[in-house]
Amino acid sequence: MSAYSAYNPPGIWKWEQDNGGKFAQINRPTAGPTHEKELPAGKHPLQLYSLGTPNGNKVTIMLEELLALGHTDAEYDAWLVNILEGEQFSTGFVAINPNSKIPAMVDMGTTPPTRIFESGSILLYLAEKFDAFLPHHPQNRVEVLNWLFWHMAASADLGGGFGHFYAYAPEKFEYPINRYTMEVKRQLDVLNRQLSTHEFIAGSEYSIADMAIFPWYGELVKGKLYNAGEFLSVHEYQHVIRWAELLLARKPVQRGRMVNRIQGDLSEQLRERHSASDFENKTQDKLSSR
Amino acid sequence: MSAYSAYNPPGIWKWEQDNGGKFAQINRPTAGPTHEKELPAGKHPLQLYSLGTPNGNKVTIMLEELLALGHTDAEYDAWLVNILEGEQFSTGFVAINPNSKIPAMVDMGTTPPTRIFESGSILLYLAEKFDAFLPHHPQNRVEVLNWLFWHMAASADLGGGFGHFYAYAPEKFEYPINRYTMEVKRQLDVLNRQLSTHEFIAGSEYSIADMAIFPWYGELVKGKLYNAGEFLSVHEYQHVIRWAELLLARKPVQRGRMVNRIQGDLSEQLRERHSASDFENKTQDKLSSR
Repeated sequence: MSAYSAYNPPGIWKWEQDNGGKFAQINRPTAGPTHEKELPAGKHPLQLYSLGTPNGNKVTIMLEELLALGHTDAEYDAWLVNILEGEQFSTGFVAINPNSKIPAMVDMGTTPPTRIFESGSILLYLAEKFDAFLPHHPQNRVEVLNWLFWHMAASADLGGGFGHFYAYAPEKFEYPINRYTMEVKRQLDVLNRQLSTHEFIAGSEYSIADMAIFPWYGELVKGKLYNAGEFLSVHEYQHVIRWAELLLARKPVQRGRMVNRIQGDLSEQLRERHSASDFENKTQDKLSSR
Repeated sequence: MSAYSAYNPPGIWKWEQDNGGKFAQINRPTAGPTHEKELPAGKHPLQLYSLGTPNGNKVTIMLEELLALGHTDAEYDAWLVNILEGEQFSTGFVAINPNSKIPAMVDMGTTPPTRIFESGSILLYLAEKFDAFLPHHPQNRVEVLNWLFWHMAASADLGGGFGHFYAYAPEKFEYPINRYTMEVKRQLDVLNRQLSTHEFIAGSEYSIADMAIFPWYGELVKGKLYNAGEFLSVHEYQHVIRWAELLLARKPVQRGRMVNRIQGDLSEQLRERHSASDFENKTQDKLSSR
């Protein structure tokens, strides 16, 4: 125990608003809407409300993969939800995701329309709706779901744990950084071992498990998340790198990771997506128009 | 920024084994087995390898609910995996869950046997196998899956975040405690709002979403997790308390939360479960025999 650890938690916790680092202004101890605003809606059956974070990328990669397969019913409008401006707390957004997190989706093609929230739930919904990227063989299907559920808890440790304390917290706290670094390295080793004997995460077939895990762990080993490649010695995870490069070479993956992105290279950003031609028509003007 | 925060992360992280608090001895930055040992197997089709933690309870509650419904094929052997003794790192366990976490299950009733890991994946597998606790109506089914996926990331914040820093870390670190307390209170408010207008988590039907969320948030509002009821002002979440009491009154829930439990009241512990009669036959002798 070090001398500076004099904190004793109070008997009853009270909220103090000035704590929290980069995302402090959007973190609250309460749920529900903060303001009245309806969501926009476009012409396609699938309306996506998202942001180009790893959790957002999962869904846009899946939608672009479905379109590339020829599922024209997977055409979608991808609306930007700027979480730093609190847009996830509008009455419209909370109505489709009471948890106020992106991504959230509405399928207007059902009666009544279906709300789907949580990236894993959206991936499973789309896989079942279009009968794609989820194997029919019972054992293979279960294996995809095993890894899909694995990634939900794992990416909470990577994003909410490691990412927060390594990149976003107002100070560098040694203990949490060590705790989450150890866990992320363990998870990378889990994936590396799996990918040493399997082409894709859940076997020989490309699936929603790959699309779920790539935006977190694939981007991480390519040094594109938190600038943490050297810190984590990502070169140790050669099989994960091999798999990440396999996915990155796919055009639908390249497209999907551009949608709703508002950070990084302008050439990799498509702030909103309402038509397949938006990728071709993307110009500097459109990028800065919002 | 306070004066004592002089930590600068190194360029490349290195593992130092003495960091980590209560569970330090089982945390590693690598995956894979540490020793050769096969798993035991009993006579029932479903072989569960688990521990009576919230994640373990989800599955045993589901299995007891299935048996109470008359699904005799849901008979199971529940083997104790003592994670503090590293039993999750045996070759046998890693073969069914490469992530080395409880619970993990093998369905011996399929050819070949099916491995299922991650509590959410096991719940979905059992719901589909027995066509129970997952509605047929499309929108209702999606809503259950939305909340099932919600709880995977949420309970990582509750267990791995709040629980670790409030109850298990070697020191009380103010910043992470505040961070995870705020998030857990927000999640409790999400549930409280949902349960203010719905009898169960995903609507009017009892489902695997309830069984997934109860062992974490239900136990929490009843003051049975981390002894944190007063700290979190759980009395504010009246609808969650109403729902937790509804579930706690169910005999299958009472049974499920006893299985593989090795802490707390002896009367609430059934270290291993190989037959329905084990609950009735439970004696002080059996409890202390291992």
